Amino acid sequence: MVHFGGEEEFKVTPWEVEGVVDYDRLILEFGTKPLTEDLIEKTRELTKSYLPIFLRRKFFFSHRDYDLVLKDYEEGRGFFLYTGRGPSGPMHIGHIIPFYMTAWFQEKFDVNLYIQVTDDEKFIIHPEFEFEDTKRWALQNIFDIAAVGFNPDKTFIFQNSEYTKIYEIAIPISKKITFSTARAVFGFNESSKIGIIFYPAIQAAPTFFERRRCLIPAAIDQDPYWRIQRDIAESLGYFKTAAIHGKFFPPLTGISGKMSASMPETAVYLTDDPETVRSKIWKYALTGGQATAQEQRIKGGNPEVCVVFKWLEIFFEPDDQKLRRRYEDCRSGAILCGECKDYLISKVQAFLREHSERRKAVEPIVEKMKYTGKLAREMWDLHIPEALRK
Amino acid sequence: MVHFGGEEEFKVTPWEVEGVVDYDRLILEFGTKPLTEDLIEKTRELTKSYLPIFLRRKFFFSHRDYDLVLKDYEEGRGFFLYTGRGPSGPMHIGHIIPFYMTAWFQEKFDVNLYIQVTDDEKFIIHPEFEFEDTKRWALQNIFDIAAVGFNPDKTFIFQNSEYTKIYEIAIPISKKITFSTARAVFGFNESSKIGIIFYPAIQAAPTFFERRRCLIPAAIDQDPYWRIQRDIAESLGYFKTAAIHGKFFPPLTGISGKMSASMPETAVYLTDDPETVRSKIWKYALTGGQATAQEQRIKGGNPEVCVVFKWLEIFFEPDDQKLRRRYEDCRSGAILCGECKDYLISKVQAFLREHSERRKAVEPIVEKMKYTGKLAREMWDLHIPEALRK
Repeated sequence: MVHFGGEEEFKVTPWEVEGVVDYDRLILEFGTKPLTEDLIEKTRELTKSYLPIFLRRKFFFSHRDYDLVLKDYEEGRGFFLYTGRGPSGPMHIGHIIPFYMTAWFQEKFDVNLYIQVTDDEKFIIHPEFEFEDTKRWALQNIFDIAAVGFNPDKTFIFQNSEYTKIYEIAIPISKKITFSTARAVFGFNESSKIGIIFYPAIQAAPTFFERRRCLIPAAIDQDPYWRIQRDIAESLGYFKTAAIHGKFFPPLTGISGKMSASMPETAVYLTDDPETVRSKIWKYALTGGQATAQEQRIKGGNPEVCVVFKWLEIFFEPDDQKLRRRYEDCRSGAILCGECKDYLISKVQAFLREHSERRKAVEPIVEKMKYTGKLAREMWDLHIPEALRK
Repeated sequence: MVHFGGEEEFKVTPWEVEGVVDYDRLILEFGTKPLTEDLIEKTRELTKSYLPIFLRRKFFFSHRDYDLVLKDYEEGRGFFLYTGRGPSGPMHIGHIIPFYMTAWFQEKFDVNLYIQVTDDEKFIIHPEFEFEDTKRWALQNIFDIAAVGFNPDKTFIFQNSEYTKIYEIAIPISKKITFSTARAVFGFNESSKIGIIFYPAIQAAPTFFERRRCLIPAAIDQDPYWRIQRDIAESLGYFKTAAIHGKFFPPLTGISGKMSASMPETAVYLTDDPETVRSKIWKYALTGGQATAQEQRIKGGNPEVCVVFKWLEIFFEPDDQKLRRRYEDCRSGAILCGECKDYLISKVQAFLREHSERRKAVEPIVEKMKYTGKLAREMWDLHIPEALRK
């Protein structure tokens, strides 16, 4: 679970990301597969769509069994989507991006989506939190997630503390996982709380909601959870879950590590007002520019290490041509960092304005996705599936 | 958790009872207190009642904080009752006796009672069981338990797999218990399933249903579960749970160990028909008699090691005078083992006949105790108590 690159150390676990992540190396260490051009092309064919930037630019870069998911779809067996959110604070831009990837999958493949909001786990992990804290964040986060836009009749958003039926489904899973296995994957020790030792069964439970293949779009640090699921799924008569892994959205302060809600200077929150966004990006965004404007005009900048460019590349500049031109203009010294910052600021502000408007209108949709939509109603009436009874 | 007596070895854990149990020694080893004459007298005063044989004859022999329970009652703070059943098979006479003790407490003190039916735990522990098995036993066992007779508006009987709200309440408890503590109490190891490691939080949850002292009548082998509760309760603003501990109902085959559903020749089931009862007691009941009737007439028998006498003493002969006379008549050789067996058989048959009739009539009462009675309705609408949110 802890990984060290050759020249520069880095570390990726479900709880920590540190250092400059070598994604190719991560694929080797985690034993996942690179998302190849073939698979991306296949996705384009099947969806008959212009691909979203997350795929075009390989922000989603690795997978497990995504090829089988596409095959299942192509041959009519279908699949379903599952992802989640740990509600320990306000959501920032890095948190919301995988939900856009997920929404695209749902729209194009027209499949069910389950979103687990883990207020139980976050409460247990954080000594300083009361249960009310994570429950309150859960609700706040659900509003942000719903604002992304999902099919309200094919999406079920649930908090574990409320949809406690998840416990019933976790029981047969917890019967298949020994302490030894869970410790090997998560590094539990003597002082681990018994709630956290049980937790992998809760997080795996939604992969058993349907007897089709499950596709999980998520950042790659969550991968360990699915290794346990993949170990036991077939013995329960289910599919090993598939996953498609995102990179980490870089913090303002540099392209290493990941944006962290616990370091506000590294993040832009979905609730930040336009002035805050401007001042954070101006103050903290690390660019690849030179020391002076004059020097930059002569030597050019380095977009490879520039957070501003990365943010545009990952999410805020969907136009490929414009992005390429900006890259070249930076390299040649034709533009200065201030111009790029201004451009990013206007893009982020526009995005947050739209997000905020969608969020205001989302209450009836949240109601549907939690309780009254078609899938939500099915899930509240769920009987534990036959195959899970062993 | 494993205990060895001086002359004869014995062992008492939540899963096993072996050997001739030295109950005085168990009190020392477990660190509980003997149920004194003072406490029994106090119970009589407060309930203004003739005491049931379980107290008069000290089948319930040990306690934790039962004195404080009586004080709470006397001073108007009240208390509540909690007990449970692990549904891994049909119930026998040894299983049902603590429920009679519990029913007496409820009737005399007019308090709420929670009965946890642990179909989750039994399913996880038994590799050969499917979930449906323990769920089905849960329902069967609930009918037997309800037939004992409880106040349907003050009793909530729930299966953990169905009343999954128990998971929400277990979360804050599981946050306070480390693997190290749980292992010390229950002896978990590398191959323990993660569901079982979490389970102490589920079993402790009902002790937090009310912010009054909880009294648990149960066999003393269940005591370890309450040690963990007593360690953490006060930090959560709750009372340490109290308990009153029963001895083990002896198997037909001898007064050591305990009646076991997995050894049918040792047990009389609540569903056994009169002929089966007769033949089991005749065939298997170990008495303290001599080799021949003639020898018995001369030397007398030994009621101290006689299972038939024990069963009469614990449950089937409520008349103290009759019991004393039988003891003396055995000692003197005035009666033979066959007479005692016949007497016990008729008593057991009568009890089972009445039980079977009550069980047939119990369906609407089960409905109330599970779903529609006053307490059941409150529990299905339960919000997690303030103090448990930390």
